[in-house]
Amino acid sequence: MSKYILSTRPFREEFIRQMREISTDYQFVTKDEIHDSFDWNNVEITIGWSKDWRDKLLVPSTSLKWVQAISAGVDTLPLKEFAQHHIQLSNASGLHAQSITDHVLAILFMQSRGIFEAIRSQQKQIWQSELTINNLQDLRILIVGTGKIGQQLAKCLAFLNCRPIGINTNGRAIEHFHETYSIVELAPQTQKADIIINILPLTEDTYHLYDDDFFATMKQSATFINVGRGASVDTTALYQALVDHSIHFAALDVFEEEPLAEDDPLWMLENILITPHISGYTPHFQKSFMRIFIENFKSFHTTGNLSKNTVNIQSGY
Amino acid sequence: MSKYILSTRPFREEFIRQMREISTDYQFVTKDEIHDSFDWNNVEITIGWSKDWRDKLLVPSTSLKWVQAISAGVDTLPLKEFAQHHIQLSNASGLHAQSITDHVLAILFMQSRGIFEAIRSQQKQIWQSELTINNLQDLRILIVGTGKIGQQLAKCLAFLNCRPIGINTNGRAIEHFHETYSIVELAPQTQKADIIINILPLTEDTYHLYDDDFFATMKQSATFINVGRGASVDTTALYQALVDHSIHFAALDVFEEEPLAEDDPLWMLENILITPHISGYTPHFQKSFMRIFIENFKSFHTTGNLSKNTVNIQSGY
Repeated sequence: MSKYILSTRPFREEFIRQMREISTDYQFVTKDEIHDSFDWNNVEITIGWSKDWRDKLLVPSTSLKWVQAISAGVDTLPLKEFAQHHIQLSNASGLHAQSITDHVLAILFMQSRGIFEAIRSQQKQIWQSELTINNLQDLRILIVGTGKIGQQLAKCLAFLNCRPIGINTNGRAIEHFHETYSIVELAPQTQKADIIINILPLTEDTYHLYDDDFFATMKQSATFINVGRGASVDTTALYQALVDHSIHFAALDVFEEEPLAEDDPLWMLENILITPHISGYTPHFQKSFMRIFIENFKSFHTTGNLSKNTVNIQSGY
Repeated sequence: MSKYILSTRPFREEFIRQMREISTDYQFVTKDEIHDSFDWNNVEITIGWSKDWRDKLLVPSTSLKWVQAISAGVDTLPLKEFAQHHIQLSNASGLHAQSITDHVLAILFMQSRGIFEAIRSQQKQIWQSELTINNLQDLRILIVGTGKIGQQLAKCLAFLNCRPIGINTNGRAIEHFHETYSIVELAPQTQKADIIINILPLTEDTYHLYDDDFFATMKQSATFINVGRGASVDTTALYQALVDHSIHFAALDVFEEEPLAEDDPLWMLENILITPHISGYTPHFQKSFMRIFIENFKSFHTTGNLSKNTVNIQSGY
């Protein structure tokens, strides 16, 4: 019992027992259980990552070999230092696919069925039945990012007789997408789209991908949805596009700064849905997450390598 | 050109041409084209129905043989007098199935993903991430009415891995429903349901079906959705249940009085979505509606009988 699995959060006893069944060499410890005499050099695995662990675990004497991230995105982690210390990294990609899909479907149907407009009329206690209502099937939906979440969303949309268009690094075809294009074709595809959904991970390439030029390219009737990462959007540019009504609507679940400041001007807009980073919230999270961790732990214990959800530290996803 | 097809609304020239191709004996007239010397005794068919036609068309000298309703529900029509005059009746059932399904899906996903709560926090400019979020798949969804709309909704929900429960007159099994029960089992099924959706037509049997007793039977955490008819709900009982928080939420698209009066107390509630009877609004309506009318017109012209969407005047649907 000399090695530690250090976790940012607790897990139910059933999962701790499963870890012990694989190996009794490890002790599961949550960050709240760390005491003064805690031996940081015995931490071999972490579940999640905490900024104040950097000084303790990214040092020459470290035993840390594997970080299992709790999110799909790993943009907030010290990737370069993980690489220097040869620390393996895995993420929770795939867990949030259904949750984010459901969140986006809510927005797509609210938008196409006039429900955002209806809610604004309700707030003013006005029966306003002259609303813009479209068949979702008639709208051109551009999904930027064709990973697990994009695919799950495209699958649902295809069932609903929509024809989602995908954008990825090289335009390779992906199941359930009607068409796919390379990211270099983002501008011409944006010109044609009625709804644009960002699901990209945050990397150096995607930082402020959605800037003044991008929003100027969007149709005036089009909607922008962000369930990826806040910093992929130049928020000042988006704010201006919404104020000018040069785009119709934005639904944002992620922001450059979270929580959004009380006095952030985005709150004052009418043509926006602000949700507090909830799209990825997944009931039964522990169970789904532990399916990934336990399988990786078995593999790590036997071979020293991971078998699932490994992250390429160079590309960042 | 001595017989009239009298319509409450205009249709595009392409459809008038299709009527003429079937028979040149009829002239298509909209109600706005009626002039003083209009011969009401030459009206053989109406598309839609207007209250002030009763004195003109439901008289001994009438030639009226067929009313093609524009809506799915025919509760506002003088059914008894149609029966007395042996007038055939057909409706537009089926046309609104996808529209109403999309509207209900918007509400189901908004509810399960915490978006109603998020919108209330946004109005107060508060970042409130402690929301109640469920997997839609874990909720017990009761659909009261298993006609075309109910079936379309159940089909989409089944694809999304939900297990919709249906209620109909005799509990007969219906495709896409996980289980179906007879209307006499509404109370025990209501006790177990997380979401209850009314899609029933309005008849003598369904007037104020949702009354004090019904709302008292619902779980306190449950949501009531009405996209059927307003008068199926005892609105006073529903209002009280919402004020008392003895039910969680209501999403109403139809009301006993429409439009909802400016000073209606429903507007003041926080736990309600009010939409102005928009769920059935269908883009491309003319095209879909004329598919029904033209087919019936062919059959009526050839045999004197209708072939599609006939309504049983006794049952009212």
